[in-house]
Amino acid sequence: MTLDDIRAAADRIASGIVRTPLLTCTWADPERPLWLKPETLQPIGAFKIRGALNALARLDEDARRRGVVAYSSGNHAQAVAYAAASEGITAHIVMPRSTPQIKIDNTRAHGAEVVVCGEGEREKVAYEIVAERGAVLVPPFDHPDIIAGQGTIGLEIAEDMPDVDVVLVPVSGGGLASGIASAVTALLPNAKVIGVEPELASDTKESLQAGSIIEWSIEKRNRTIADGLRSQPSELTFAHLRSRLHDLVTVTDDEIRSAMAVLARKGRLVAEPSGAVPTAAYLHHAAELPAGRTVAVVSGGNVDPALLSDVLTRSLDEED
Amino acid sequence: MTLDDIRAAADRIASGIVRTPLLTCTWADPERPLWLKPETLQPIGAFKIRGALNALARLDEDARRRGVVAYSSGNHAQAVAYAAASEGITAHIVMPRSTPQIKIDNTRAHGAEVVVCGEGEREKVAYEIVAERGAVLVPPFDHPDIIAGQGTIGLEIAEDMPDVDVVLVPVSGGGLASGIASAVTALLPNAKVIGVEPELASDTKESLQAGSIIEWSIEKRNRTIADGLRSQPSELTFAHLRSRLHDLVTVTDDEIRSAMAVLARKGRLVAEPSGAVPTAAYLHHAAELPAGRTVAVVSGGNVDPALLSDVLTRSLDEED
Repeated sequence: MTLDDIRAAADRIASGIVRTPLLTCTWADPERPLWLKPETLQPIGAFKIRGALNALARLDEDARRRGVVAYSSGNHAQAVAYAAASEGITAHIVMPRSTPQIKIDNTRAHGAEVVVCGEGEREKVAYEIVAERGAVLVPPFDHPDIIAGQGTIGLEIAEDMPDVDVVLVPVSGGGLASGIASAVTALLPNAKVIGVEPELASDTKESLQAGSIIEWSIEKRNRTIADGLRSQPSELTFAHLRSRLHDLVTVTDDEIRSAMAVLARKGRLVAEPSGAVPTAAYLHHAAELPAGRTVAVVSGGNVDPALLSDVLTRSLDEED
Repeated sequence: MTLDDIRAAADRIASGIVRTPLLTCTWADPERPLWLKPETLQPIGAFKIRGALNALARLDEDARRRGVVAYSSGNHAQAVAYAAASEGITAHIVMPRSTPQIKIDNTRAHGAEVVVCGEGEREKVAYEIVAERGAVLVPPFDHPDIIAGQGTIGLEIAEDMPDVDVVLVPVSGGGLASGIASAVTALLPNAKVIGVEPELASDTKESLQAGSIIEWSIEKRNRTIADGLRSQPSELTFAHLRSRLHDLVTVTDDEIRSAMAVLARKGRLVAEPSGAVPTAAYLHHAAELPAGRTVAVVSGGNVDPALLSDVLTRSLDEED
């Protein structure tokens, strides 16, 4: 992943994304001033739109006619559906039967053809569509075009704040962290990009310590409330994370909930649990982080309203 | 208020504000595509920072040494406190005893000297500070520098979307609506700026119909949940509203609550009741609005978390 790849991605996706501003936090520790990068403001409420738009823009005419396929129950599904619609490409989205109806409806509303399948059959069904129709699979993170698209966030941070010291990014499949770390370390050699994982899905922390990918069962990773951070890196993203992340810290589910409340109450942002993970590290793990000017990426805002309401109510109870 | 005044304000305040993006709403009526202008993302969570920064930047050295005074229990207090601190000016903020402690604490946290006074004595106490210290009063809306500062929002809308058809803005004291209408109508003669008021504080609607300011008692205006929209225009702002607003529509308190839930659930934005008023008009008063590309200003996000939680819970109940 080179800076040129990421710059080319930025040009390709410029008209389809929101160039999110950095938001000053008046409530932050003055010794460690904080800015938020609110990817919650993207059209589908999450950063995934960047990688999806870049991957689709790279398709040739033939591939565009055949359409694309993605398997996802989360933000990647929405992103591919939305990006395909805006490019006039047919999208098939494979979603497991357990997907909440609202997410299926939203994906259909973006004009995608939703294929509902049994649990654990998503990949198989997606590859059947690839075989039958010649459609192109758009993977959620394991592809250079996806990584370059997500990396445009790092480009924007470096442009807007050339004296940033610390950038906090969530880690799951590693596409976002790989892209941001590639852009930021290339442009600002003194800035430190630090990955943040839920403790309950901290396979990448263990893998980085071991120096190779350690598998965690999906049951084990599914324990965390951060439903967007239950994937594992691929060989491609893991290689980026090993060489370009300065460090990786983990946060508890309670810390994630607390960060969601702070983001809503003081940052006026609706964040989903996965999107609040970097802010949780800022708030609860100061001792493990370098000092200085800090940016926390708020990666997505697609949260169950009942959970948001609950988090807000509890934060008031704790205050009393 | 001329375009030059507003452009000069934009230059003065550029380094202190967030240049807020226009956010596409994938959930909007395709016949009336909608973008949100999220002033909730400003450092103090509301547009008021623009007018305050512009007013302070216009002070001469002598006035800066003597300091500034504002009376407000709301976003204007935070805005003046924050702007004064960033300019190294002493700010005295007069707040009535009934102000929630959290707002007093926040104002102090920005470095302002808070003067707590009896109900109905705010203005008197503020003018005492002006007399004693020679401090300069920064009014919440009744001043050309404040109107020009708020007008920079209109400038940004016109720059970012030259083909906008309709701009929806909240109306209270009228500083925001006067500024935005001045900028937008000067730059885009075909665009229509429409004011939105809570029905329970629709003094301006009545005044516009009568052609002169009709007084509503503060008790009557205080009935609305939109606590930021309980002021009345001055002669200065009323003259702007009369000549530059295309129309004014009103919304009920229930419609405001519903719009707060939609903004959180679909727009991933935390809006206070006053900030959700233009979106309420878009959602519930389509028949009274012109067709076309619409921008709704989300003017502020400083909401009691218990209210936000309640609004989210009710929106789920209504869905069942």
